[in-house]
Formats: sequence, structure tokens, C-alpha cells
Amino acid sequence: MSLTVIADGQLADGLRRIQREVDAVFDALLPLPGDSRAALIEAMRYAAIGGGKRVRPLLVAATAEMYGVDRDAAVRAGCAVEAIHVYSLIHDDLPCMDDDDLRHGKPTLHRQFDEATAVLAGDSLHALAFEILADSETSSDPFTRSELIATLAIASGKDGMAGGQMMDMASEAEDYDLHTITRLQQLKTGALLGASVEMGAILGHVAPEGRAHLRAYARDIGLAFQIADDLLDVEGDVEKAGKALRKDEQQGKQTFVTLMGVEPARKQARALVEQAIGHLSSHGGEADLLRSLARYIVERDR
Amino acid sequence: MSLTVIADGQLADGLRRIQREVDAVFDALLPLPGDSRAALIEAMRYAAIGGGKRVRPLLVAATAEMYGVDRDAAVRAGCAVEAIHVYSLIHDDLPCMDDDDLRHGKPTLHRQFDEATAVLAGDSLHALAFEILADSETSSDPFTRSELIATLAIASGKDGMAGGQMMDMASEAEDYDLHTITRLQQLKTGALLGASVEMGAILGHVAPEGRAHLRAYARDIGLAFQIADDLLDVEGDVEKAGKALRKDEQQGKQTFVTLMGVEPARKQARALVEQAIGHLSSHGGEADLLRSLARYIVERDR
Repeated sequence: MSLTVIADGQLADGLRRIQREVDAVFDALLPLPGDSRAALIEAMRYAAIGGGKRVRPLLVAATAEMYGVDRDAAVRAGCAVEAIHVYSLIHDDLPCMDDDDLRHGKPTLHRQFDEATAVLAGDSLHALAFEILADSETSSDPFTRSELIATLAIASGKDGMAGGQMMDMASEAEDYDLHTITRLQQLKTGALLGASVEMGAILGHVAPEGRAHLRAYARDIGLAFQIADDLLDVEGDVEKAGKALRKDEQQGKQTFVTLMGVEPARKQARALVEQAIGHLSSHGGEADLLRSLARYIVERDR
Repeated sequence: MSLTVIADGQLADGLRRIQREVDAVFDALLPLPGDSRAALIEAMRYAAIGGGKRVRPLLVAATAEMYGVDRDAAVRAGCAVEAIHVYSLIHDDLPCMDDDDLRHGKPTLHRQFDEATAVLAGDSLHALAFEILADSETSSDPFTRSELIATLAIASGKDGMAGGQMMDMASEAEDYDLHTITRLQQLKTGALLGASVEMGAILGHVAPEGRAHLRAYARDIGLAFQIADDLLDVEGDVEKAGKALRKDEQQGKQTFVTLMGVEPARKQARALVEQAIGHLSSHGGEADLLRSLARYIVERDR
């Protein structure tokens, strides 16, 4: 872990804690079977356990905590979002998509296992996300479960993450302007980050109108997150990032950085973070973790 | 459609009706957007509309009808199961999996579009299944929605369809016995067929213990269905089937037919159908469609 850039002890603790908790839930949910499905479960464990910053589960847990939600429920909901995120990374890394060899500092799933196993492990993590949310252990209230599921399903499908990935693939052939890049990133990255804070609030029985400021917060950190990613692609250290960099340039892709330039992009990311924090003004100290997380998103080095 | 083998008018009507209804729901759920996600939605429509026998939606609808469920709700739940089935066909047809060129008499999705679009269209249909079920239009009762989702998620993931597909892939390297083939097929095909009848009963507010005979029915028709598939692979007409045949032999796979022989397999399939129908003995004429469907499963020619 390279959390050295984080001066904020609360956030560093929060990230370490959620990383431990998410690993423990996935470990419990994915016991190795005694039949020839074992390679599938091994592949799911390889991808889901011990990698990633767990920003999305932390967003769920930090928001849920603001509303006094039981920690175990929040961690389970966070694992559902993370299962979607992990499956999307597995499929995006496939040779027919981004063809990446490295993820979180180790070989991508199709490199470590094979392509067919990667497709199936992604599909199985996708189903697992909804299995987790539909279980009464996540919430004893079926309305809450159904709301969590609707939020995650919409955010991950054609009108969210998968739709954004499709726009991203088309971007190699088309010249997108800043407006289209913004829309693309709101779907590809923003939708799932937005779902994370919403799901925390849903667990806290906050009505849709009471979540508007959280959605606004998530929209802003989502864009800031993506600009930071684009900056990392240009300026980052491959070893710290644990994945291939300089890919946007090689693929001739338009990004916030190619369209705006490095310094204006960095300024814009910081402005978005301040705007995101502004949306939390109705909250007191209980929103400090979300505030720190917003700042971390643009300062991180991986 | 080649329903000529069906003497039973009720079943032929039932299949034609559900095919129309499923197409209409997918058409309404998948409007073409005005941005570069259009190719993704086109691909989803290509795979989801106008193909397939719709056996799973008919199982949902026929079971739901036994318990007086609103038709629109049953068709929506049937579309959710079908969305899972269709996504699994798209991914199974990929070059890294079965590498098939033909499906329902037309080019497979990755042949018509490209591999990346096929991966994403499958993923998007996967998410759509749960989006449909989490919507109050499918059921106004959140407990029912949550039960539908839990049933479908478990049946389609590592402990169901995807797990069975993994066992199937491993079967090319390992020599499976009849017991293991049965387990494989119960997961790969049986789990989703079983979920279909259960979901019909869940919509009818039937408690789990009241669904045991339906699960038993589904388990038997699931195996009969697979034996019929294996027989079709050996004896079928490629044009009617609309997909490649003689693949099991080429790939050196063990199937019910290679392990039992053609005639004993056919006899076993028929015995399973009679056993399946036996599980419905507590029902009167309202279960006739499920009885006809069981018989159709072994007599079909595609």
C-alpha cells in the first residue's frame, strides 16, 4: 500500500479497515468447492481478495456511518459494489478489450488463468453482487434490499458503467469533445461511485430527495477521480500504479488531460473536490471521512 | 419456428404468445440512444429480440398462471431469466469459450459485431435482468422482488449456471462419469430452468415448502432437456437447429449419450419426463401447460 501521500490519519485508518473487512467477506463468501469448479472460485478469489484501494466500499461505509447503519450491513453492500467493480476490471483487461497484462501489481486474471476462466469469473462476481444484496444479512428490510439492487443494477449496466465503457471503446475511432468525455466518464466511473454513496444512504433509510446532495458530491468526486486517473496515466509511476500507464497517448485517446492540458486539468480536479466538499455543508464532523476521501482522490499516486 | 412436432395446440399457442410478449418487453426496455452507446444497445437487441424458443419465460409464465399471477408481471420475470440465458449464450459463443459462429440461425454476436461488444452486451443484459426484477412494475411487493432476485442470482452464478459452464470446460480435459455429468448439467442448464418455475411460484406468493414439487419437476425436465440436447447434437438437423452440431464428438466430450448410448439415453429422457409430470399430480388442468412443456422438451427438433 502506498498511502504515504495521505497526511490524514482518519482516512488511512478507514482505508486499511475497509480493505481488511472486504477481504474477510469475500473470503467467507468464496470457499473452495471439492469439484471442478475449484478453478473458477480460485480465479474469483485471485481477483477479489487483496487488491485494490476499495474506494467504493469505503464510500458506502463512510456514508452509511453518517446515518448510523450497522457496520456489517455496510461492508456487505460495499462488497457488492466492489464485486461489480472487480468483474468490470477483469472483463476490461481481456485481450478483446484493453488487453492488459498487469493489474494491482500482479498478472491480470486471463494471464494468470486463461481467457475463458476470466470471462466466467467476471460473470460469477457479477451475479455474486446481487446475491449479496438480495440476502437478508445485508438488510432485514426487503424494500431496502430491492432499492440497493435497483441502484446497483442501473449504475452498472447500459445506462451506467457498461455504457460508459462502450463509449470509451468508440472514442478511439471518434474525436470526442469535453462535453462527451464528461458524459462518458460520468457513466464509466461516476455511476458506480454515485451508487456507492447512494447505497450507504439507502441503508440509512434516507429518502431519494434526501440523497440529492450526496449524488452531487459523488458526481464531482467522480469527475475529479477520472481527471486524476488521466493525470496518473501521463505523470504516474508504473511501479506504484501497479498497471500499465501512458496508454491514452498510445491509443490516441482524448482525455480530460489531452483536451485541457496538464495544469488546467489539475486545477479543475481540485476545484471539483472543493465543490464536492461544499455539497456536504449540511453535515458536521460525521462527514469528515467523505471530505478526506474527496481530497485523497486527487492526491493519490495510484 | 419449427413447432411441427408439437401436436399439442395449447403448447404451440403458449410458445407463440410468450415469444411475442418477450420480444415486446425487450423492445420497450432497449430503446436506441442518441449517443455512441447505440452499437451496444443494437447488439443487445440483436441477441435478445426475435430468437430462441423462450422455454424459460414460458416456464415462469405457465407456473405463475397456475397461481393466478398478473400476466405482465410474469412476462417481465420471464424476460429477466431470458436476459440471463441470452447473456450466457453470448459469452459461451465467444472465441475463448465455445467459439461458435451460428446461433438461432444467424451469426453469433461477436461475429456480427465484435468480441468487445459481445462481452459488454452480455454484461449489460446480465445487469438488465436484475434491473427488471428490482423494478416495482414486476411486483409491488419488495419481499417478492428480493426473493426473485436471490433465486435468479444464485441460479446463474458460481453455484449454478456459470459453475456448470466451468465444469463443462474442464470436461474436455477430464473423464467425467455419469454422476459428474449429471451434477454438471444440473448446474449448467438445470439451475436456470429450476429458477424459472420457482420464480413463477414466488410471484404467486407460494412459500418455499410449497415449491418443492415444482423444483422436483424442474430438476427432471432439466436433465431430460440436456439429454435431448445431447441427442440433437448426434442426430439433429443443422438447419433446423440453427447452430453447429456434432460438437461433443469433435471435442471428445463425455455426454449422457456417449456414456449411455443413444437408445438408453432416449429412454431415460422419456422416463424423466414422466417422472416430472408425476410431480404435478397435486394439480389439475391448470398444470397442463407444464405437462405439455415437459413432453415437448424431449420431442423438439431444435
